[in-house]
Amino acid sequence: MSQCFAHELRSLISSDGKLRLSIDRVPIAPIEDDEVIVRIEAAPLNPSDVLNLLGAADLSTLKVVGDRIEAEVPQARLPGLSPRLDRSMPMGNESAGVVVEAGASAQALVGRTVAIAPLGGSYATYKKLKARDCLVLPEGTPSRSGASAFINPLTVLGMITTMRREGHSALVHTAAASNVGQMLNRLCLAENIPLVSIVRNPTQVELLRSQGATHVVDSSTEDFRTALVEAIAATGATLAFDAIGGGRMAATILAAMEQVCRRSLTTYSRYGSPVHKQVYIYGGLDPGPRIIEGDLGMAWGVGGWLVMWFLSTLDPAEVGALRARVASELNTTFASHYTAEISLADVLSPEVIKAYTRFATGEKYLVVPLISRN
Amino acid sequence: MSQCFAHELRSLISSDGKLRLSIDRVPIAPIEDDEVIVRIEAAPLNPSDVLNLLGAADLSTLKVVGDRIEAEVPQARLPGLSPRLDRSMPMGNESAGVVVEAGASAQALVGRTVAIAPLGGSYATYKKLKARDCLVLPEGTPSRSGASAFINPLTVLGMITTMRREGHSALVHTAAASNVGQMLNRLCLAENIPLVSIVRNPTQVELLRSQGATHVVDSSTEDFRTALVEAIAATGATLAFDAIGGGRMAATILAAMEQVCRRSLTTYSRYGSPVHKQVYIYGGLDPGPRIIEGDLGMAWGVGGWLVMWFLSTLDPAEVGALRARVASELNTTFASHYTAEISLADVLSPEVIKAYTRFATGEKYLVVPLISRN
Repeated sequence: MSQCFAHELRSLISSDGKLRLSIDRVPIAPIEDDEVIVRIEAAPLNPSDVLNLLGAADLSTLKVVGDRIEAEVPQARLPGLSPRLDRSMPMGNESAGVVVEAGASAQALVGRTVAIAPLGGSYATYKKLKARDCLVLPEGTPSRSGASAFINPLTVLGMITTMRREGHSALVHTAAASNVGQMLNRLCLAENIPLVSIVRNPTQVELLRSQGATHVVDSSTEDFRTALVEAIAATGATLAFDAIGGGRMAATILAAMEQVCRRSLTTYSRYGSPVHKQVYIYGGLDPGPRIIEGDLGMAWGVGGWLVMWFLSTLDPAEVGALRARVASELNTTFASHYTAEISLADVLSPEVIKAYTRFATGEKYLVVPLISRN
Repeated sequence: MSQCFAHELRSLISSDGKLRLSIDRVPIAPIEDDEVIVRIEAAPLNPSDVLNLLGAADLSTLKVVGDRIEAEVPQARLPGLSPRLDRSMPMGNESAGVVVEAGASAQALVGRTVAIAPLGGSYATYKKLKARDCLVLPEGTPSRSGASAFINPLTVLGMITTMRREGHSALVHTAAASNVGQMLNRLCLAENIPLVSIVRNPTQVELLRSQGATHVVDSSTEDFRTALVEAIAATGATLAFDAIGGGRMAATILAAMEQVCRRSLTTYSRYGSPVHKQVYIYGGLDPGPRIIEGDLGMAWGVGGWLVMWFLSTLDPAEVGALRARVASELNTTFASHYTAEISLADVLSPEVIKAYTRFATGEKYLVVPLISRN
């Protein structure tokens, strides 16, 4: 059986500032020896996917045109998008599904359920890829359990690997009630890594506490800064991963770390503590300016952090070990939870778009391309 | 001849918020085998010294009380100063002078002119220290040529060492008409390192051009950002050292670097170029918040950088080689220029204070403790 076409969600931004999302019927070229074709059964809508789909557009202009979605892209954003203008692009980072066809050297994969590395084009009915980009899931694992086997699990594993490589021994995490935050909490509990989770309301505090978290601080409370300082003192954290990006959170964390580090100084220095304090920004929930202020001393750093770039600095064997660990703990440490399952067509439904562009903490949608609503 | 006392400039901030600068007569303890006593002949007033002397105070409250200077320290600044409150502290980082007495194992130094590592207490007539903290100057070098042999020379050498260690091949520098900036320009010319110098007015452009600088951009001009992008493109700089700190300069540099790096991308990525772009803030000419905004992609970092902490990460032999190079190029690459020579008493003169707290670019004062104004 040769799959010669697939349905695929594609995005086109034209140079005159129109975004168009559509589901296109696209041909699949014949496979090479080391390639497979996967019937995609589940693909998550991660925040980065949502930004890829609609982040450039002015959502107030969104409208349905036939079976497509169209929206305006503000002129000011077009220069930053120039490499992709007028080029139809497949959407969706990661997914899982069943191998339905395989080249000569990949026959062993036929019939196996696999997770697919973030290559783009996961919102599709079928996808052709290299066998090496498949993570074979343990027998009996359903696709929906493996759909998020790459980005979130490797993100949290990347965080603790970064922590160890840069000589820290504890972590601070923001927007910590998210899927990533809950996963990081489970991983840190398993690894005995002290973790400070910063959340935005009492419900999220309870959620993480119910999952065994010890140090949860609520940024909406009056005594947030004091509580943060004490949690950092209790854990010794000098590294934070921040999903927010804009505003003052990174600086607030650095100032709290510096305040703790100064407690052990015996002599005065205008430069503060020499212990290096680092915040890596890996998300952009707040796209505004990052304000770095306060009494930080001189031993601090803030910067961007992207899991795929970080993994590319590791030895391939080390990455392989991380992937194998994910596969074996998919139902425990690295389990993902979804708010709802939606079809490919639902991704283009204005009501569903309204839901998934809210970025509500802990909410995540799973695209199941073969669901039929007709 | 045993020196049993010295005159020393000391600073005391009391816990009720009074700053007091005075010249005190202090005893010198007997020397150990590995110690020397130096008659200090020259000590620079670096920006960090000025901040140590007066940075905490409200300068509008400055007054002469007998032979002392007093000023108010705003209450809000006291918590950050707590380790030094009510403790009289010697002032001045580096200096040079003549060894007048030495312990048994340091006899070879007697009579030699030496530069003294930044230990604090350089605004004094005599100073006792370990022989290993002396950098013996070539015969015939006057103290005033060696007074700034540590901080500025090791700062610029530290910058290019950092550049090489972190895999960059060119530099951007701000406030580049400063003493450090002119020195960095000479060093980069000698080492064939492409350098982009950011200055604030046309006079400073001319100054650096007259010293052989190729890429000088003036932040006061309309086309500053365009000129900065082109200078970065011409040099390939992905590392900057920033003396300003506050405001938007670090982000402006990062955005310009990112814009240049994206020129070589062939496919679109929402994350921008994977080439890491770094700004190290080593000074605080603008103490306001640092605003990190703009289209920076995800591969960027901003952080504090302090030469002495950086040197402590190097192999001692490597530091020794840097120090030896400074000694041999004190009159060329690492020459310092002073606006005026002042006495210890002048450091406490309100008119002189007004001059040295202006932080005018390129202006620097040299304290000559043994000048007598009487």
